[in-house]
Amino acid sequence: MRPFVHINCAMSADGKIAGAERRQVRISSEEDKARVKGLRMRYDAILVGVGTVVSDDPHLTVKGRSRDENQVRIIIDPNGRTPADAKAVDDSARSIIVTSDSCSRTWDGCDVIRSPGGIDLGFVMERLGEMGIGSILVEGGGSTIASFLKAGIVDLLTIYVGSMVIGGSESPTPADGDGWVKDGGLALTLKNVERMGDGVLLEYVPR
Amino acid sequence: MRPFVHINCAMSADGKIAGAERRQVRISSEEDKARVKGLRMRYDAILVGVGTVVSDDPHLTVKGRSRDENQVRIIIDPNGRTPADAKAVDDSARSIIVTSDSCSRTWDGCDVIRSPGGIDLGFVMERLGEMGIGSILVEGGGSTIASFLKAGIVDLLTIYVGSMVIGGSESPTPADGDGWVKDGGLALTLKNVERMGDGVLLEYVPR
Repeated sequence: MRPFVHINCAMSADGKIAGAERRQVRISSEEDKARVKGLRMRYDAILVGVGTVVSDDPHLTVKGRSRDENQVRIIIDPNGRTPADAKAVDDSARSIIVTSDSCSRTWDGCDVIRSPGGIDLGFVMERLGEMGIGSILVEGGGSTIASFLKAGIVDLLTIYVGSMVIGGSESPTPADGDGWVKDGGLALTLKNVERMGDGVLLEYVPR
Repeated sequence: MRPFVHINCAMSADGKIAGAERRQVRISSEEDKARVKGLRMRYDAILVGVGTVVSDDPHLTVKGRSRDENQVRIIIDPNGRTPADAKAVDDSARSIIVTSDSCSRTWDGCDVIRSPGGIDLGFVMERLGEMGIGSILVEGGGSTIASFLKAGIVDLLTIYVGSMVIGGSESPTPADGDGWVKDGGLALTLKNVERMGDGVLLEYVPR
């Protein structure tokens, strides 16, 4: 059985998760940050794409927690671009790097999954399930989130909408990639709407 | 005094107002369509950019209303690309086309405003005020909305978030153009959140 997949992200009122040139912008409120911290602790693993690792260098851990307490960190990284000194592969938590099977790079102390066909998320999810990962929180970026949505591998989608306009046709959005409106897009059911600080949290499940 | 400016648009949960290649997607619910119809009747004029006219060919009128009852239609069209047979310049309502002062094209039965400096929205708003337009509903597209937001010419911003994912890094968003996060972006205050059909309506004012 594949792990339960929850996609969570924060976007501006005009649908951007960062500024042009992937410039990081503070979108979340303090209330939302506390919510995300709580969320992380409820999942077995936290997953991001290598673009997020390269541009933001996130730690993906909860402060004050030990290696064994921290969630497993999963990085989708087809061509093995994760820097050896990235915070997401340090020894503060277990890390799994998912590359295509044409990549042979390894990282000290990290597990690696080699996926056929670029990245086959169905295959990867099955492998992660076998490795004992029962639930995953997907945190970004836009291409990674889009690939999960496109593959239909999502059980819950939460989007925090921050009260600001970022603008820019080149700015990253919650679902980048090629888009798939020609194939009907992905219909969602709105489960909950909640005002949170100066923003709003939207909760969806796939229809 | 410049007219009151209300920007209204519908976007998907991932922040898109249309599919890649500007392909139109039904984002609004029936409830939201009724709301927009009511909105239009409350304003002196409805404004869109020429990109919307070319790709969607909207009528921008309320069915069953006469020429005098219908709102004035304003098209921001720097280079005069509005087709002579576009529905938005037919005789069912008054139309004003705003071009740069380097354009000399005219349209049968339409008023034209020539703006210095490409399009100087401050200048255009002043002219529209002099022409008796007291309030404007800006309906899109992404570049036009972005130019109003960037110029700080907005009094009210409503965004209907439809329950679907459209995806695509090239898909239009509510605020395209260059973005202006380097200059701090535009801070908003969330005034109201309202569930509407299977989507949600967010109402903001600039901070």
